[in-house]
This record gives sequence, C-alpha cells and structure tokens, in this order.
Amino acid sequence: MPNGMEETVQQESDHREISVAEFFEKNKHLLGFENPQKSIITVIKEAIDNSLDACEEDDILPELHVLIDEIDDKKCRVEVRDNAIGLSRENIPKVFGKLLYGSKFHKLQQSRGQQGIGISASAMYAQLTTGEPVTVYSKQKGEPCHKFIVRIDTEKNEPEIIEDEVIEPGTDEFPGDKDYYFDHGTTIEMDIEAKYTKGHHSIRNYLKHTAVMNPYARIVLREPDGNKIEYPRVSKTLPDRPEEIKPHLHGVELGVVIRMMENSNARTVSSFLQKEFTRVGRTSAEEILDKADIDEGRRPNTLDKDEIEEILKAAENTNLQSPPTDCLSPIGEDLVLKGLKKELNPEFTTAITRKPTVYKGNPFQVEVGLAWGGDIKEDGSFDELRFANKVPLLYKKSACVTTKAIEEVDWSRYNISQTGGRPQGPLYILVHIASVWVPFTSEGKEAVANYDPIRKEMKLALQEAGRKLGRYIKRKQRAEIQEKKKRKLTSYAKEMGPAIADLAGEGDPAEIENLIQAMVEADYNPEQL
Amino acid sequence: MPNGMEETVQQESDHREISVAEFFEKNKHLLGFENPQKSIITVIKEAIDNSLDACEEDDILPELHVLIDEIDDKKCRVEVRDNAIGLSRENIPKVFGKLLYGSKFHKLQQSRGQQGIGISASAMYAQLTTGEPVTVYSKQKGEPCHKFIVRIDTEKNEPEIIEDEVIEPGTDEFPGDKDYYFDHGTTIEMDIEAKYTKGHHSIRNYLKHTAVMNPYARIVLREPDGNKIEYPRVSKTLPDRPEEIKPHLHGVELGVVIRMMENSNARTVSSFLQKEFTRVGRTSAEEILDKADIDEGRRPNTLDKDEIEEILKAAENTNLQSPPTDCLSPIGEDLVLKGLKKELNPEFTTAITRKPTVYKGNPFQVEVGLAWGGDIKEDGSFDELRFANKVPLLYKKSACVTTKAIEEVDWSRYNISQTGGRPQGPLYILVHIASVWVPFTSEGKEAVANYDPIRKEMKLALQEAGRKLGRYIKRKQRAEIQEKKKRKLTSYAKEMGPAIADLAGEGDPAEIENLIQAMVEADYNPEQL
Repeated sequence: MPNGMEETVQQESDHREISVAEFFEKNKHLLGFENPQKSIITVIKEAIDNSLDACEEDDILPELHVLIDEIDDKKCRVEVRDNAIGLSRENIPKVFGKLLYGSKFHKLQQSRGQQGIGISASAMYAQLTTGEPVTVYSKQKGEPCHKFIVRIDTEKNEPEIIEDEVIEPGTDEFPGDKDYYFDHGTTIEMDIEAKYTKGHHSIRNYLKHTAVMNPYARIVLREPDGNKIEYPRVSKTLPDRPEEIKPHLHGVELGVVIRMMENSNARTVSSFLQKEFTRVGRTSAEEILDKADIDEGRRPNTLDKDEIEEILKAAENTNLQSPPTDCLSPIGEDLVLKGLKKELNPEFTTAITRKPTVYKGNPFQVEVGLAWGGDIKEDGSFDELRFANKVPLLYKKSACVTTKAIEEVDWSRYNISQTGGRPQGPLYILVHIASVWVPFTSEGKEAVANYDPIRKEMKLALQEAGRKLGRYIKRKQRAEIQEKKKRKLTSYAKEMGPAIADLAGEGDPAEIENLIQAMVEADYNPEQL
Repeated sequence: MPNGMEETVQQESDHREISVAEFFEKNKHLLGFENPQKSIITVIKEAIDNSLDACEEDDILPELHVLIDEIDDKKCRVEVRDNAIGLSRENIPKVFGKLLYGSKFHKLQQSRGQQGIGISASAMYAQLTTGEPVTVYSKQKGEPCHKFIVRIDTEKNEPEIIEDEVIEPGTDEFPGDKDYYFDHGTTIEMDIEAKYTKGHHSIRNYLKHTAVMNPYARIVLREPDGNKIEYPRVSKTLPDRPEEIKPHLHGVELGVVIRMMENSNARTVSSFLQKEFTRVGRTSAEEILDKADIDEGRRPNTLDKDEIEEILKAAENTNLQSPPTDCLSPIGEDLVLKGLKKELNPEFTTAITRKPTVYKGNPFQVEVGLAWGGDIKEDGSFDELRFANKVPLLYKKSACVTTKAIEEVDWSRYNISQTGGRPQGPLYILVHIASVWVPFTSEGKEAVANYDPIRKEMKLALQEAGRKLGRYIKRKQRAEIQEKKKRKLTSYAKEMGPAIADLAGEGDPAEIENLIQAMVEADYNPEQL
C-alpha cells in the first residue's frame, strides 16, 4: 500500500456527523414515505395522530377537518385542522421543524405518537419533494392565532422560521373551513409529492378505520374534486384518559438505571427506588437493598456499576407486583360495536375487550370485534381492521402479530370456512392493542412485532368472539333451513290441505298451520313426503 | 375543560429534544438487538463490516480475529481485531461513542457500512446491558498504539473519554492473539449481554457466509470453550476498489438540489450541474438550462425554488446517459465458485455475475451461485446464502427480495423439484447484490426491499445458473441410468455371452463389450431381454 498514509488523511477528513434529519431524509422509506400514494396517507396519519392525542389529553371531543387539493398531477396541498387546545407559540417551530422533539417519548403512557418523529418528518418530506416549507396556525383559547412558516435546516436538524405573524379570526387568512369556527386548535398545511387514490390504501379508508376506532371524533374529508365525506360522531363519551406510569424494575436495563441514579436528586437509594419505579414500596426497597447488601441510606449517585447490577439482580429475585394496568385506555366493547355498526352496517357484531396484561414490563390490553353479513360483501377472504393505540394500521399486514393471531385460530369450529388459515365470508375482523409502548417493527409504525404474550391475548380474544359469531351463524343457518322447510310445507299444504282436512274430518286452517309448524320444529323432512 | 390552560402549561413543559442515542436505545430492536442470541451476531457483524471496509479501502488483504469469552451465563466479552491501517487518534472517540458519525453516509460508494450507526450502536448496547464502556486499540503504521476507553453520553449522543493512553507493542496489554502481531490495525473489546449458540443463527454461520463472499480474507474465530476455527484465505486477489460516484439528475429530489445549490461555490449554474452530477457535460447542461429558460451564467445560490424545479423538469425531459456502473465491485464468478467450493465442498457449482444496471438512479449489480450435492445434505428445501455488499444477511428472509426472486423461478424446468415455489434437494443458492446504496428494509440491514428492477435481475441470474445446473443434473441422471443398464447388461452378458458368441460364430470378448455399449447407447431396455 504505497499511498496508504496519504489516503488515510483523505479518508479521515471525510468523517463527519450526520444529522438525524439527513439520516431520515435519505432513509425516508423507513418512515412510510416509500411512494407518492403511501406518503400522503403517512402525512395525514401523523397529523391526525397528533390532533387526536391533543384533544384527548384535554378532554375535548375531537373535530377534525382534512382538506386535500391537487396542485398538479404529482403534487397535493394537504390541510389538517383540529379543535384541540393549540400549541404555545414557543413550541411551534421545533414541533414541526425538528426531528426527535416531542412530549411523549420520555413518558410511559398510552398515546398515538410515541417517537417525536412523525409530523416533523412529514414537514421534511414536503420540503424534500416540493421545496415548500410547512405552514402552521395555532390558537389557544383567549389567545391570538399565531401563524408560522417553518423550514427544517436538514444539516442541523433545527427549525428555521420564515414567517411569524398574528392572524385575526374572521380575516381571509384565518385557516380552515369557514363553516366551522374553532376558538382553539391547530391547522397545518403542506405541499407534498402525492398521489390521491381511493382503494384499500387510501385516505378514505384510513379515515374510515380511524372513525371505527374513534367513534367520539367527528371527521370531515374534502377530496380534491370537492366531494365532502363526513365521518360522524356516534358517541359523546371520551374514553378514560390514560395515566402515565413509572417503569417496572423487572423490565428495565442496567444502563438505564445507572443513568437514572447519576441524575437522581433522591437523598437515599431506598427513596430513589420507591420514587422512580412502579410497585416498589418501602418494604420491597428494603428487601432488595438487603439482598444486594447495599446500605439503604446511601445517595444514589455514590453507587458504582457493580452495586447497581447487584440491586437489579436482587430485584429479579424479589417478588414485585406486576405494573398497574389501569393506565390503559381501550375504547371498550360498546364503542367497538358502535364503530363497526356505523361504518360497516353489518347484520351481526360482537366485541371482546380482554383484561390488561404485561409484556417485558409493559402493560397492554387487546380488544377485538367481529362484524358479519349485512352490507359487508362476501368476496372470499375476510377483511381486517388493525389498530395500535387507536391508530389504523394499513400496511405490512403479513409482518403483523394480528395476522399471526388470526391464522392460529381454528375458524371452522365457529361454522366459518377457512382457506390457508384465513377465515372466509362476509367478515370484518377488528383487532386493537393498547399499550404504554407498542413494539412496532419500524419507525413507520405499520406493524406490531410478533411477541408471544401479545399474540396469545389476541388469539384468546378472537376465539371468544368467534364462539359468539359461530353460535349466531348456526342459529341463522338453522332458521334458514326451517324457513325453507316451512315454505315448502306451506305450498304443499295449500294444495294438499283440503284433502288432509277432509281426511282429518275438519277444515280449520289454523290447525293445519299448527300442524305444519310442529312438523318444521320436529325437523320433518319435506323431501320424505 | 375547566383546567385546560393549566394542563397546557404542564403538557408543554414536557416538550423536549430526544437524542438519537436515546431514540435507538429505546428502539434497539430496529438495529438488530432484539435478544441476546441475535445481539452478539449484530455486534460481530458491525465490527467485521468496518474492518473489511477499512482493509479494502487501502488494498490490504484482511486478517481478522474474533475472540469470544463467556463472562457468565448472560454475558460475553467479544474482541475483534483487524490489520487495516488503523484510525487516527482524533476520530476514535466519535467513531465508537457517537451515533450517526462516519465517513460513508455522504458518499455514493459501494461499502458494507453506509449509515454511521452500526459500531457505535454496538457500544451503546454494551453500555446499556452490562454498564461497561467500549475499549479500542488502534495503531497506524509507524505510529504508537492508542488505547481508548469510551462511553456514550446517551442524552447528548456524545462520546465521553474515560481513558486515553499509549500502549507499547510487546507489552501484556497490547491487544489480540499473541501468535499474530499486527503492525497496524484496530482492536475493539466489549462486554455485552449475549447468548453464544451454534445453529443457523450463530457467529459460526455468520463467519462461514462471510468467508464465502470474502475469500481473500483470513478469519480466525476463538469460541468460548477455546475451540479455534479458521476460515482460510483462498484468493490473494482483492476485488477492484469501488469508486465513489456523483448522484444522477434523474434520481435526485428537489429539496436536495435546493440545498446543494445554496451550499455551492460554483460560479455558474452550468458548472454546478457538470460538477455535482454524473453524466452531465457541457452540452447536456446547456440543453437543460435552455429548456428551463435559465441563464447558464447565473450563480447557483441566486436561483429560487421554482427555477430549480424547472431545471429538474427539464432534466427529466433530457436524454442523459445512465450512471456509470464501473463504480461497483462484485466479487466475480471465479471467487463465487471458489468461496462455495471451499466452504461447502459440493459436487457441482456454477456462478453468474450479471452486468450492472440501475434502480432509482442508483447503480447495482447482482451475482448468484448454485452449489449442488457433495457434502451438502439433502434435507428437503434448499439453503441460501444472501449478501448485500458482501455482508451476509441471516435474518428476515421472508421479507427479502432474494426470497421473492427465488420463488419466481420455475425450478422444475431445471430438473429440480419444487414445493411451494421453493426448490428441493442438496442445494445452496447464493445471491449477492452490490450497490452504491442498498435499499434495506430497516436500520438493522437484514433484508433488501423488493424493488422490481432488483428482483428482475436476480431472477434472470438464477434462471441462467439454473439452466447450467439443470443440464448437469440431467447429464448425471442419464449417466446413472446408463451405468445401471450397463451393469445389468454386463451381468446378463457374462451368463449369455458364450452363447451369443457361439451363435455369432466367434468368441472375442472385446466385440461383446462393444455390442453391450451399443445396446446401452441405443437406449436398449434390458427388461425387454
């Protein structure tokens, strides 16, 4: 290698920092921006996630407007408006102009967003594909409406404010659909490379699924051709607000505890354990520290790595209660049924909300719904509605735990035919997982990882609901058979009735009717007549 | 919402920045750290990727040592040592102690690493699971050997130097296997939560696959029980070093060009286009700017967004040559064959290296190899060896374009039976994609996205190789049948020969032999005798 050292210098001067915005710009497919058709759904999804989270956080019944216009055959302008409490002026630029910034990442709490990437990545996608910055209007109650135009400085991952103004309500520039004046809320506008379509992977379908799982929201979509679709509110009751919880000692990594100890201002390691972790009271803390041979009065930041490791080992061997599960907020069986009925108009529905349980220290809860017949078309395999923390999952079905769970159920036991593990017929299967931390398989949050405890809960819920549907189908089949028999016997009786009456020596048609009914119920087979 | 505003304040004070290290610490499954068995493979893989890239960059025949010790039943100490040119002192802390830092991200060049995440993420995983920092020894030729102990400050994503010393060669602390003294190279040591196993998903198998695709490397593995496995070098020829290329105007995003223009110090937009993009000469630049109605003498940073968009539209309608493809460095048919023979000892091998082509503006090239029979066991379905830029892919097979390509081939045409699209028999299928930017489906770089041009190239290569294997199998089957017939006829002739000879009036055994051969070749069926 004659030129080795020269090249070293060359090579090493190339080493540099990569901003997280540059990283995701180049890897935008990891966030759901694979192609123009999917990208527009991703943008709408991220905006709606934020709006619904914000509304629920403040007990506001959500009212969302989604307006889409085609700029040309490759570009759309999208606008999403909500009636949440609005953002404070200081936060707006970073929320929309910086990746990995947010309020949800450091909390163990059930919410739609969890990473602080979604909406700023959408703004980055807009800027990348059309060169246009994002426009944000945000108004808090009793405050002026702020308008910001924000770019992302991709190389620094920092927002650049292009415009910062106050807009008067009632003026032309005040955003949104003029039919609805919101006293508080946020509106975002972006120009993106997009393809607006109407099939399975479409905004329409995404909003339809959203409406099923969020029946307390009212959503209005204005399509590019001006057509308006309303997804009406069918419940005025918001689900209980999910509570934030502390991590559990049985699911936490050593490195994380070391950092927590270093940063802690607790006076003793015992109070540190009680304050920072769920299900650790004074007695458990003492038991753990005793087993680990650590003086409970020591300051947390005086412990070294080995001592902290001993504490974790001791905790593993200490009986601690499972994390609390009342932190979860499923929508409940009633709302699942309402949602399914409203959007699908089926003939039969059933829903199961399982009790909460725990995977890797994280509480989670599963609910399922089945809808059968009615307006649901019978075209081979079932359709599905997958949700994670109330957010529809439209992509990566085959990689998702929901699919594995559905395929593990023996549907033939419930009078439903099955092909390759997949139930057939006019059937929608809804599966929802609610958790303080959903294990998604990618940043795009498109599929949930196939963890055993999660799949097991889903399977049990599907079996329970399947039994109910199976009974309905059986009853219906029986009723249909009886109806058919009755029709046959009736037409037969009309001809033969008089003869029978004569033979029986009396002519009362009501008695003949009773006779026929008795024959039907006795499973009498007319073919044998 | 009586407490609305109060809660706002609470909520918004929660908004904060999330460091990329915190993000990937919490989402470590996205990087390949799902469980202890997989994590140890990920750590070794990232270290080896870097070592092989560094060796090839400086035309050094790679010599790698992988040493694994079990600390207890949950932890291993891993050490990887190479003979590359070593890192300069200044770069060491950031390379190992900061995520998204590196020399490869901003280049369009075929390399194993491409993101600047892998090795620092491994160090982060070590720290998270065992609390231990990473130790790095690096020596450049004629320079002292530097030892660093580095932690990652996860909240800042910045390295923290714990130790920084110079180590004398020959002393006890000088790293590595004492049998081999490297005058230059890098050694890293980490303690990680790990499970060392020996099945399909194992270090052994990972190194075996690495050896197949990098036959010019010598790799030595010392397992926890002291057992040493050598993967010997079978070629002393390094493949051509891949060249860096510029992006192509037909595959570049508007937002990226806007940023390039802003940062450019080119004096005219014409020279900017020629300098920053491949396949743009003076004539093409003039044609594009003419169509876009932009004065070619303008400074790039004076153009606005709409003007730049016009330039890209004009470029789309201008005939530009495809990007150069000599930037790619496949290993070539000879080395594919050598690799397969060395590691599998099969009866038959064949290899195809396709010509380079382009997806989304990125040059790529496919090569495949088939190995059949010999030491390869026949146990149902084929085995596969998947590679991207010479790196083995052991996970996420079903999500990978290689699997789709294999299943699209009609193997029965090549005398290979097929079940569910998968060829059966004593068969290994090797598929390799080399590209300046491999479209992985996740940061863990475990599977390649199913893009049409890539799948098509793989299918064509597999068909070409399949035909050769099919001919071999057919010849072999025919030879086996002939051999069987010959044996039957010979044993028959031994009894009947004298009689035939008498009948023919002469007794020369050589003539009888000829007669039998003629019978065999005429497909004479001994059953009919």
